Order: sequence, then C-alpha cells, then structure tokens
Amino acid sequence: MNILDNIHIILVETSLPANIGSAARAMKTMGLSQLRLVSPKLPIDEQAEALAAGAKDVLDNTQIYATFDEAIADCQLVIGTSARLRHLQNSLIEPRDCGELVINRANLGKVAIVFGRERVGLTNEELLKCHYHLNFPTNPNYGSLNLAMAVQLASYEIRMAYLQKTVEKRPLTEAKEYPTAEALEHFFAHTERLYKELGFIRNDSVMLKLRRLYQRAELETNELNLLRGMLTAVEKRN
Amino acid sequence: MNILDNIHIILVETSLPANIGSAARAMKTMGLSQLRLVSPKLPIDEQAEALAAGAKDVLDNTQIYATFDEAIADCQLVIGTSARLRHLQNSLIEPRDCGELVINRANLGKVAIVFGRERVGLTNEELLKCHYHLNFPTNPNYGSLNLAMAVQLASYEIRMAYLQKTVEKRPLTEAKEYPTAEALEHFFAHTERLYKELGFIRNDSVMLKLRRLYQRAELETNELNLLRGMLTAVEKRN
Repeated sequence: MNILDNIHIILVETSLPANIGSAARAMKTMGLSQLRLVSPKLPIDEQAEALAAGAKDVLDNTQIYATFDEAIADCQLVIGTSARLRHLQNSLIEPRDCGELVINRANLGKVAIVFGRERVGLTNEELLKCHYHLNFPTNPNYGSLNLAMAVQLASYEIRMAYLQKTVEKRPLTEAKEYPTAEALEHFFAHTERLYKELGFIRNDSVMLKLRRLYQRAELETNELNLLRGMLTAVEKRN
Repeated sequence: MNILDNIHIILVETSLPANIGSAARAMKTMGLSQLRLVSPKLPIDEQAEALAAGAKDVLDNTQIYATFDEAIADCQLVIGTSARLRHLQNSLIEPRDCGELVINRANLGKVAIVFGRERVGLTNEELLKCHYHLNFPTNPNYGSLNLAMAVQLASYEIRMAYLQKTVEKRPLTEAKEYPTAEALEHFFAHTERLYKELGFIRNDSVMLKLRRLYQRAELETNELNLLRGMLTAVEKRN
C-alpha cells in the first residue's frame, strides 16, 4: 500500500459543492486520494464534478459521515486547520512541518487533516480533539485562503515531504503504536467521570488542560493503556 | 517599498475570468499585489470579482498588456510555468528554489512569474524568453493543477522565502512556566507511593513509562499542579 493512501482529507460541513470538487482535484495533483466529508450542506453536484476534472475517482470514492467524531474515529493523528488559531499557541504547526509529520505518521496508521466550514472554520470543541493545529503563514492584512486552496497547500507540503523521504530513503520513525481518536475520547470520558465522582472536577478547565497535555504528548497506545489501568485501580478502591 | 511589490504575477491569455479572480485572492493571501494580464480572452467580470473576495484591490490594480513581450519588458528575471516542460531540463526550477530565487532578485529589481493558458500553457517561443522554468512536483498520474492553484503554490513558496529572509518575527509563544526537576521528582514519588498503595504498581516499568511520557510532554507548572491535585483527590477518598 502507498502510504499516501493513509492520509485522509476531511472537510467539515462545506457550504459549496464547488469547493469539494476543487479540493478533490487539488488532492489528486499531489497524489492524495482519500476524501471524507462531514455532513456537507449540499451534496456533490455537477459543478463539483466539473471542478474535480480528472479527479472524479476521488469524488466517487468520497466517504460521508454524520459527525466529526465518526469521521476521525479511526485516525491516529488528527490535524485541524482554522484561521482562528491564535489562542492555540502550543499546538500550532506550519505547513512544512505538517507535511513531514504527516508522512512520518502515515507510515504507522491513518492520519486526518481536517478543514472547517468556509466561513467559520472548526468549532472550539472540534479543535480540542485535534493533536495539532495547522496554521498557514498568510498575509496578516488578508489571510482569507479559499478552502480548496488550503487543501492544495497542505497537500503540496505532504507531497514535498513524501518525495524527500522516498528520494533520500531516510529511515522512517521507529514503529510505535498510536491510539485512535475514539480510544482517546474513551479515556477522556473515563477520566472525567471518575474525577467528577471524586469531587475533583467541578468545571471544564481540568479536562481542557488534560486534553492539551495528552494531545501535545502524542500519547502512545501502551501509555494510554497504562493511564486507563490507573483509572481502574482508583475505581476499584472507591 | 516592500520587496514583494517587485514581484509580478503574469497570466497569459486566460480563458476564464474566474481564474483571474481566484489568482488575485491567492496572491493577496500571500502578500503579493502586482497582477498583469496578457490579452485575456474575456475581461474581468462579476464572477472574477466575487472569487477575488477581499482581493478586489489587486484586481482593480491589474495591468493589461497586448503582448507577452510588453508584459515582461521591465522585469529583470522572468520565470515561466507550464505543464509541458520536460524538454527544458537545464532551466527547470522547483517551487521552493523558485521562492528563494525570486525573493533574492526582487530585492534588486522587478521579477515576473508567468503562467500560461489554461489548456495549452506557454508557447515554445514564450518559454524561450524565460530565464527559468517552474515545475510543480505533481502526481505523475495526474498533474493537472488548476491555474489559480498554481499561482497559490508559487505565491506560498515566495512568502515562505520572504518570511525566512526577513525573519519577520511572529508573536512569540506565550511565556510558560516549567517546573524544576525537584518538583517533578516530588510528583513522580507521589504517584509511585499512591499507586503502590492501590496495588497497581508492582514493578519499575510503570514509573519508567510515566517518566518518559511526562518528560517528552515537557510538563508545564500548571499541568503538574493539576496532576498533583488529582493524586490528592484520590488519596482523600481512600
């Protein structure tokens, strides 16, 4: 299997089918083929197909999900993009580093790069579920990248990193196992339930901080299992 | 003067006004403002303006030339793009190197990056008048970049080179506080004591894994305080 097939471009609640078509074309020019949509406002139409041009196969192969959570559930690395990212200083990543990271991790499992709604981007709740936040180095006076253009830029940097890896034959990251987004959500829910019961969690800020910590750390599967074991050990004694 | 204003994007005989509008928007998101057209088949229209969005100033400022020669006349470096470049081995340049070259030369005088017609690109005669030929590293099975997408990618690499040169300092990461090694040791000792008592820790491997996790995450002071609070919450209920 080509590692590029482990890379999923996810578009959340697009308003314009045209952008879906243009994004499909942008992806295919860079060798990407896996497109997922989260409840698009309008279905793929003739205009989308016209704009997809020779990437009709990418469009035909598109998977549609009802929710953000379902679309990312089987992915081990989730990168969110949005114009409003200034408050997310710690998890910001630029397109070039993003390309490298994605290629390294696509060798191990599924990776998602998520693009938000045309006008309002991703919600804060969605952004919280991402390990990294992709930030394009746009003009401070006008940063309004079209959705498909953003897909083109991200896909381009992924291709550049891919070509560099395959040319230089640099060893890929050592084999590690990473949990899916779904497994991570179960862990957060488990933590929240237990520490609420213990009277420690009384507002949202605790879970926000823990999410930020563990997403930044890129928790591995064996670490997640360990942390869940610790939760269970506490429960048994209560 | 900003050196980016010495960089001219030239579109030759475009068929679709939509592409002119999208190219203008793509340019402006990357800080470019100088657009030239060589005898477009159709004039800038309402659709072009709609697609330009907040880059209407770039459209309004567009200069129109009757011939390719006139459009490049005052430029000291001319880079041509086209999908059919295989015969031009010696003058090929990739987008990243192109960005650097353009920024270096824009410091000295006007630079042109010329994009050909949607279907047939630049003519051989036009390509011969270019110093370099920009080649996008596209999918060998499908290299059909939309015209405005190609403008976006070239503009992006120019911006990346520009930011690197000017080391335009982006706002620094917020000041964070990190715990001392001693504070971290207290936390590890506290964790070990509690989970031994709970019967969860029975050998060294657990603490080794937790150390690795939290050191990799570069735990911040407020996060450490939170994790210690969680330990205390568990203790209180035992």
